[in-house]
Amino acid sequence: MNAHIELLLRHRSIRKFTDQALTQQQVDAILASAQAASTSSNLQAYSIIVVTKPELKRELARLSGNQAHVEHSGLFLVFCGDLSRVSEAIGMHGKNYQPNTESFVVATVDAALAAQNAVIAAESLDLGICYIGGIRNHIEQVSELLQLPKLVYPLFGLAVGVPDETPSQRPRLPKKAVVHLNAYQPDQSVEGMREYDEVMRAYYKERTGGKADTNWTEKVAEKYSEPRRTHLLSYLEKQGFHLK
Amino acid sequence: MNAHIELLLRHRSIRKFTDQALTQQQVDAILASAQAASTSSNLQAYSIIVVTKPELKRELARLSGNQAHVEHSGLFLVFCGDLSRVSEAIGMHGKNYQPNTESFVVATVDAALAAQNAVIAAESLDLGICYIGGIRNHIEQVSELLQLPKLVYPLFGLAVGVPDETPSQRPRLPKKAVVHLNAYQPDQSVEGMREYDEVMRAYYKERTGGKADTNWTEKVAEKYSEPRRTHLLSYLEKQGFHLK
Repeated sequence: MNAHIELLLRHRSIRKFTDQALTQQQVDAILASAQAASTSSNLQAYSIIVVTKPELKRELARLSGNQAHVEHSGLFLVFCGDLSRVSEAIGMHGKNYQPNTESFVVATVDAALAAQNAVIAAESLDLGICYIGGIRNHIEQVSELLQLPKLVYPLFGLAVGVPDETPSQRPRLPKKAVVHLNAYQPDQSVEGMREYDEVMRAYYKERTGGKADTNWTEKVAEKYSEPRRTHLLSYLEKQGFHLK
Repeated sequence: MNAHIELLLRHRSIRKFTDQALTQQQVDAILASAQAASTSSNLQAYSIIVVTKPELKRELARLSGNQAHVEHSGLFLVFCGDLSRVSEAIGMHGKNYQPNTESFVVATVDAALAAQNAVIAAESLDLGICYIGGIRNHIEQVSELLQLPKLVYPLFGLAVGVPDETPSQRPRLPKKAVVHLNAYQPDQSVEGMREYDEVMRAYYKERTGGKADTNWTEKVAEKYSEPRRTHLLSYLEKQGFHLK
């Protein structure tokens, strides 16, 4: 154990920030850290939109399901999968780019690795963060707002700011449900889920002063039995990502 | 700037490790850090296979394009997108799960965020890492080897070990190519690529003792004008991920 690992283990999402803006030095450190992350074959297939205009933040907050912490963040970043530079580079040398599912995965992973580095940098500066998957709710409108060209898509937002709350840490699935030795063990996974259900029942009760009597699998079944964001594939196709 | 950010900015991939195995304490710290990462709506839609069997590592090295550092790593992890627990949870409560492109993205991002936390933890312990996208070269065979059930897919491997090389750091695209203020600026992106081409020409020359006279866009055009891993979509469909 060391200070870096302690920082990682202390993580919790923050959904309420003070009005304090970040310093330029903080913003620069966060962006440089993002750019230092690993990238598949050095493609660097992602871009980051730094959103500072208040009306733009307000609109993104609304489009993300009225998440106030998007608007009231010290810094709001939108991480995009970006194959437009790859396409441009190939075009410069007289060839045509043919994106597929593989390159979509590369762009998505590159954006996620950069974002997680940004998160660690922010948290090391005593800032709080919250990932905003909600920007995919109205992904087409978000893309128009940010003027994203073909082959660029908004993967998630990242709200950053000075924390104005101290939430308790949400327990994770037991290690046995997630980590497998040499081969996947389905029984171990299910056993871990059942244990987690009990842990989460206690957690939900405590968080709601006894009101919520539910568990993890119930919550998941409630929220995910209907497919979500069913517009994503047709949006991606329109944006030039061909998932073939 | 602080020690955490310095650690992030120092990153370079390591492709040669000493034979030293990791201690259990190191492995535990890396896995706990992975589990502490953010996860979309607490779905934790990923799993990690810890590969310790020498013959399994050897086979994965072969299937990843004969990458020796896979076999000769102190620790080899395979990060998988995993919707099987979500499906199981929904089934436990009498409903049917209908995966789509959105849930595929969630699983992919969850796996990537966990992996990047594992990377930071490993590097903080003076270990080196290399992401292995090559496990998608023969993704079906890798899945069979690791006995992955439906709705689990291997996204990438992560080779970890005590570094036995000190490579120079590869320059990144200039900030202007990747980071945009309030809206995407295509001109800025292309300008950044042209500047990067010059930086990378010097870098390739220096790395090859003057032999390689190429740049970034040329390399990208050479390697990516033909679609790669064209089997990915049909594999994913077979594995139960419906990218619809």
